[in-house]
Amino acid sequence: MKHTPTSHHELGPLLAFGAHPDDIEFGCGGVIAKETLSGRAAHFVVCSRGESASHGTQAQRLAEAKNAARILGAAIEFADLGGDAHFEVRAVHALKLAGIIRRIRPGVVLVHSLEENQHPDHPRLGQLVRDACRLARYGGVKELRRAPPHAIGQLFYYALTPEAEPVNVAPVLIDVSAPEILAAWTAAMKAHASQAASRNYVDLQLTRARYCGLRAGIGHAIALFPGDPLVLDSLAQAGRGARRF
Amino acid sequence: MKHTPTSHHELGPLLAFGAHPDDIEFGCGGVIAKETLSGRAAHFVVCSRGESASHGTQAQRLAEAKNAARILGAAIEFADLGGDAHFEVRAVHALKLAGIIRRIRPGVVLVHSLEENQHPDHPRLGQLVRDACRLARYGGVKELRRAPPHAIGQLFYYALTPEAEPVNVAPVLIDVSAPEILAAWTAAMKAHASQAASRNYVDLQLTRARYCGLRAGIGHAIALFPGDPLVLDSLAQAGRGARRF
Amino acid sequence: MKHTPTSHHELGPLLAFGAHPDDIEFGCGGVIAKETLSGRAAHFVVCSRGESASHGTQAQRLAEAKNAARILGAAIEFADLGGDAHFEVRAVHALKLAGIIRRIRPGVVLVHSLEENQHPDHPRLGQLVRDACRLARYGGVKELRRAPPHAIGQLFYYALTPEAEPVNVAPVLIDVSAPEILAAWTAAMKAHASQAASRNYVDLQLTRARYCGLRAGIGHAIALFPGDPLVLDSLAQAGRGARRF
Amino acid sequence: MKHTPTSHHELGPLLAFGAHPDDIEFGCGGVIAKETLSGRAAHFVVCSRGESASHGTQAQRLAEAKNAARILGAAIEFADLGGDAHFEVRAVHALKLAGIIRRIRPGVVLVHSLEENQHPDHPRLGQLVRDACRLARYGGVKELRRAPPHAIGQLFYYALTPEAEPVNVAPVLIDVSAPEILAAWTAAMKAHASQAASRNYVDLQLTRARYCGLRAGIGHAIALFPGDPLVLDSLAQAGRGARRF
Amino acid sequence: MKHTPTSHHELGPLLAFGAHPDDIEFGCGGVIAKETLSGRAAHFVVCSRGESASHGTQAQRLAEAKNAARILGAAIEFADLGGDAHFEVRAVHALKLAGIIRRIRPGVVLVHSLEENQHPDHPRLGQLVRDACRLARYGGVKELRRAPPHAIGQLFYYALTPEAEPVNVAPVLIDVSAPEILAAWTAAMKAHASQAASRNYVDLQLTRARYCGLRAGIGHAIALFPGDPLVLDSLAQAGRGARRF
Amino acid sequence: MKHTPTSHHELGPLLAFGAHPDDIEFGCGGVIAKETLSGRAAHFVVCSRGESASHGTQAQRLAEAKNAARILGAAIEFADLGGDAHFEVRAVHALKLAGIIRRIRPGVVLVHSLEENQHPDHPRLGQLVRDACRLARYGGVKELRRAPPHAIGQLFYYALTPEAEPVNVAPVLIDVSAPEILAAWTAAMKAHASQAASRNYVDLQLTRARYCGLRAGIGHAIALFPGDPLVLDSLAQAGRGARRF
Repeated sequence: MKHTPTSHHELGPLLAFGAHPDDIEFGCGGVIAKETLSGRAAHFVVCSRGESASHGTQAQRLAEAKNAARILGAAIEFADLGGDAHFEVRAVHALKLAGIIRRIRPGVVLVHSLEENQHPDHPRLGQLVRDACRLARYGGVKELRRAPPHAIGQLFYYALTPEAEPVNVAPVLIDVSAPEILAAWTAAMKAHASQAASRNYVDLQLTRARYCGLRAGIGHAIALFPGDPLVLDSLAQAGRGARRF
Repeated sequence: MKHTPTSHHELGPLLAFGAHPDDIEFGCGGVIAKETLSGRAAHFVVCSRGESASHGTQAQRLAEAKNAARILGAAIEFADLGGDAHFEVRAVHALKLAGIIRRIRPGVVLVHSLEENQHPDHPRLGQLVRDACRLARYGGVKELRRAPPHAIGQLFYYALTPEAEPVNVAPVLIDVSAPEILAAWTAAMKAHASQAASRNYVDLQLTRARYCGLRAGIGHAIALFPGDPLVLDSLAQAGRGARRF
Repeated sequence: MKHTPTSHHELGPLLAFGAHPDDIEFGCGGVIAKETLSGRAAHFVVCSRGESASHGTQAQRLAEAKNAARILGAAIEFADLGGDAHFEVRAVHALKLAGIIRRIRPGVVLVHSLEENQHPDHPRLGQLVRDACRLARYGGVKELRRAPPHAIGQLFYYALTPEAEPVNVAPVLIDVSAPEILAAWTAAMKAHASQAASRNYVDLQLTRARYCGLRAGIGHAIALFPGDPLVLDSLAQAGRGARRF
Repeated sequence: MKHTPTSHHELGPLLAFGAHPDDIEFGCGGVIAKETLSGRAAHFVVCSRGESASHGTQAQRLAEAKNAARILGAAIEFADLGGDAHFEVRAVHALKLAGIIRRIRPGVVLVHSLEENQHPDHPRLGQLVRDACRLARYGGVKELRRAPPHAIGQLFYYALTPEAEPVNVAPVLIDVSAPEILAAWTAAMKAHASQAASRNYVDLQLTRARYCGLRAGIGHAIALFPGDPLVLDSLAQAGRGARRF
Repeated sequence: MKHTPTSHHELGPLLAFGAHPDDIEFGCGGVIAKETLSGRAAHFVVCSRGESASHGTQAQRLAEAKNAARILGAAIEFADLGGDAHFEVRAVHALKLAGIIRRIRPGVVLVHSLEENQHPDHPRLGQLVRDACRLARYGGVKELRRAPPHAIGQLFYYALTPEAEPVNVAPVLIDVSAPEILAAWTAAMKAHASQAASRNYVDLQLTRARYCGLRAGIGHAIALFPGDPLVLDSLAQAGRGARRF
Repeated sequence: MKHTPTSHHELGPLLAFGAHPDDIEFGCGGVIAKETLSGRAAHFVVCSRGESASHGTQAQRLAEAKNAARILGAAIEFADLGGDAHFEVRAVHALKLAGIIRRIRPGVVLVHSLEENQHPDHPRLGQLVRDACRLARYGGVKELRRAPPHAIGQLFYYALTPEAEPVNVAPVLIDVSAPEILAAWTAAMKAHASQAASRNYVDLQLTRARYCGLRAGIGHAIALFPGDPLVLDSLAQAGRGARRF
């Protein structure tokens, strides 16, 4: 409450965090495709190598993640927060992520929601990134002095499963119906071939997006949950409501 | 679920409903001013003459309401739902309001929130208007055959007091800081001179808007609560989050 | 929002509403006993004759209700809101109850909570009384002109069963452990002899009060749910928290 | 709280209420199919003729509803609550529905959830049926003397759209994956041919059921929301949790 | 989301975790008694020796815990998570508990709820066990390679006090009214004689169970809160609702 | 659950915790002023030196904090929980704070709420202090043996921003309208001169207090959120409700 943010709300790059090599793709790959196809830069930070999963070697999974990022038009880097299935809410981790935020200087940040769901690492990363977005603003943090403070424009949470959807925050629905977007998204999910044993996970995500789109009267949509209320210039900017039925 | 909506989401006029002659002005007058100053048409429907209030004759209050609407650049009409302090959730009332919606064919509708608060008429009108927005879409409703079905773009709730703010819907904050907007809003509230006994009610609303603006790092803002999730074309459309502190 | 309340917050009488002849006694009889034993006047309004119940004639039930009120040191009157099992949220009913509030001029009002529970009449009466407390303040309501406006000090909700307890309002717990209070309360509940078939309903209420008291580290307590936040002069007035275990 | 229920918890017939001719089929048709295929009797009460919809004559819609009920192996009757798009929460309606409950004497009752959603009639019917289940138990209700009191075993709410799903009640998921169940359900939905304009409504429901099934690690499932906590004899009865991912 | 669970939902043993030597007995001892009396195996994991409590030596408390487990027909082991009053949410702890789950291979797991309540250790253990249930499924976790992955059937939370009851998850109520069950439960609670100073803690639990039973129209019941929605084969499996009053 | 509290509920001193040097003053300085002006002792524990903030040296900030405490009539000490922007929920921190509670032996404790808000340190300190209040009661905690167990009377949470206000706990509003209280509060906030860059933070707090007071029909008020339900001796003690509009 005593920290001067560096105000900066122009359309900076998109910065997406995922706990495991395929989380960003499955959680919000369609939104990424839409943004990069429209020319916005995107940057992925994958915070483990998925080494605790039942299938896939670390080498395979890294190659898959890099390929998926390439399909979505995003840059990618890896961060170490103690290893897959070992995430903890520690200051040292939040500071590491805040350093990345200061380096990339994003307009929008995307991360797992804070709701407990299928994997304990997911909400932990959500908390760490939320904290990191705050820490990145504070001018006096010793560990962050390498880069100037940065205030992001908005933090959006994505949800890999319905359990992960916050119940008391209205989502915004992003239209991902365009064929080239759906194609890129599907390809990026399928790039994670080592995870084929859970291949109906792709089915789950497309089904969710179709379900979400049907509610809104469009083809497919992905729900994102804003971290703070939206500040709008006019009612026109709010678009229309999702109310097809 | 078996009714074909007439899809129509171009920027139609703004339609605002209030239970008593000064509710729209106090609840969201700043938003109205912003929209009309930018050239959008606005239409008020006042659903009683405020005849149960402690002060002001019906003639005075009607004159005040007309004057306030004029200041805000809005057309105004009056509807009868049984009289001030006598509102009930009846089908006949919802159908009457649906008829108005079909006649005006708004893009955005504004009304009291559904939360119980200072006056029982407020959430009742909220419910009636929410229902009316639905009924206006159904092609077979006998009482509404005079005009073709109409599907609005979005319903926003306004809150006259903090008790009326929904706790589990994230608001959108509309920036009303421009001097000409604040001036028009304040003048419209003060136009209700017979209600001078509650004159710090103007103070309350400006204080709320300042408080809301401080949170967002701007001058003054008014919170509106969307009836359905927002459907957006891109993350850029979502603007930035309200996070000044 | 445009009605001048007659401010009046001295310790007026207690006014308790119940849908059926035994509701007040079972819902908050211990609190009534405590207040009347300390010298405060109490007034009961019973809004049906319990004529839809499985047991007891109307004559029996009226006699029982009068006897129970006598035991608790309260005056009693009956109001007609359409009959047992026929309550509706109608303006005419709220206005009738507002007239009683203007006549009795209470400091505190007690009524069923708004949560749906065992009997549809219960939350309906809660809504009607909440509305009536508002209407009683408005100077211009034609039907209420017989008596001057009156603003109550606080509205408390009582809950006959756990389902009726609001989940998002912290209760205040009233200590009813004193032997003379427990005795009066128990006697008032037992005065409803025609309802003997549900006699473990007495057991339920004493069990709840004991359970509630155990939480607070005292003998027995009754939870009431305030309609509006408490305004306190100091932290000392807030007493201590309920945290025995 | 003063009414003696007639305890009766053997497996009575299933009683399902719908506001419009196709609501039961779209909301929980798969569950109906499963129960009737296993030999349980089912009875539908359709509370309007869908006459306010954009498509279909009353004659068509009645024929469709009868056909769909036949496909699902259920009996059907029609009740009049004021007409499609005219539902109100009135005691007279609740008493009429309570009379049906006393006549059919169901073990389980199914109805629209109480959440506001696409059609104002839906939650209104939910409220009326919930009230009716209570009224059916009270021995002294004059209008209901034709048949003895009846206490149902459980009330389940169904949801036609995601907006209608209660957020603070955990659902139970009923497995409807068997091919003959899915076939009967789909046929019953398609029997409402006049509603073809909303034909992706069938798509929505199958998508929801697939989505729900994916979460639980099975094919398709329908979520129902219990009106009261489940009373179980053992943990084995609770089956397993829905946690595929 | 990238981990293949070993599906295994036959009726495995019951596995109950408690933070201190008497938590399982006080929180859900009646359910344990019911299950073991019906022949199911039960296994307790006590995660501290209660050494921060005001009364009782570690030797006494271990003896009491073993005796109580014996009374309830359960095996018992002790785990060290840093000591009484020192619990933290650390990956190393969750992994240790996941190892126990893989060794015991339970169908049902019972643990403290996640709500903050009387003792900070309680919800921490709840979180650790919830995480452990997830980790036990992932095939690649190095620390867990000693035993094959295991997916439990369901996780139930118990609540030691009302503050610990989750407010937005409907409980299931387990009937523990049978005299032999109540006797075993009471004896197991009283086996913790060193905790005699809090002897009305036994009173609290029996009062809660009686209160819970009264709601359901039975003698005594214990509420458990399922971690995931129940997947049921039919409505009959859901039993009846808890609605005595 | 097995720890004997030392009951002690007389009016002990006020103990307020803040994460950074100015948090107590901005969050609840008016309440502190009111209590100390009425003769109650107050003690501040500031848990960092604000060294991660954008402005102010550590020496400046300590001097400012001491000066502000002096203005409010409170004693002050500093505690180290790992440094500004480095707070974690660790047992060692909670035990350190519990030691302070045993030394000061307060009646009332004040701390940041548990809601995520502007600074990650805020809710972390809230959790640590809540835990510390529990640990201070347990007789056997080795690290705390220096002083006898102590049970506080009540824990109140304060909120620095609206995001930090708990949504499901009714606040109590403390009247801070008296000119000498407002003056002391304002002076204490302004004492933090190094934080001048955020000087409209003072404006925010006074605006909030005015807004809160307007709701209650008084000048200025500060909302506090009780950690446990209030135990009251009578309804008179509850004062009146906040319902001016």
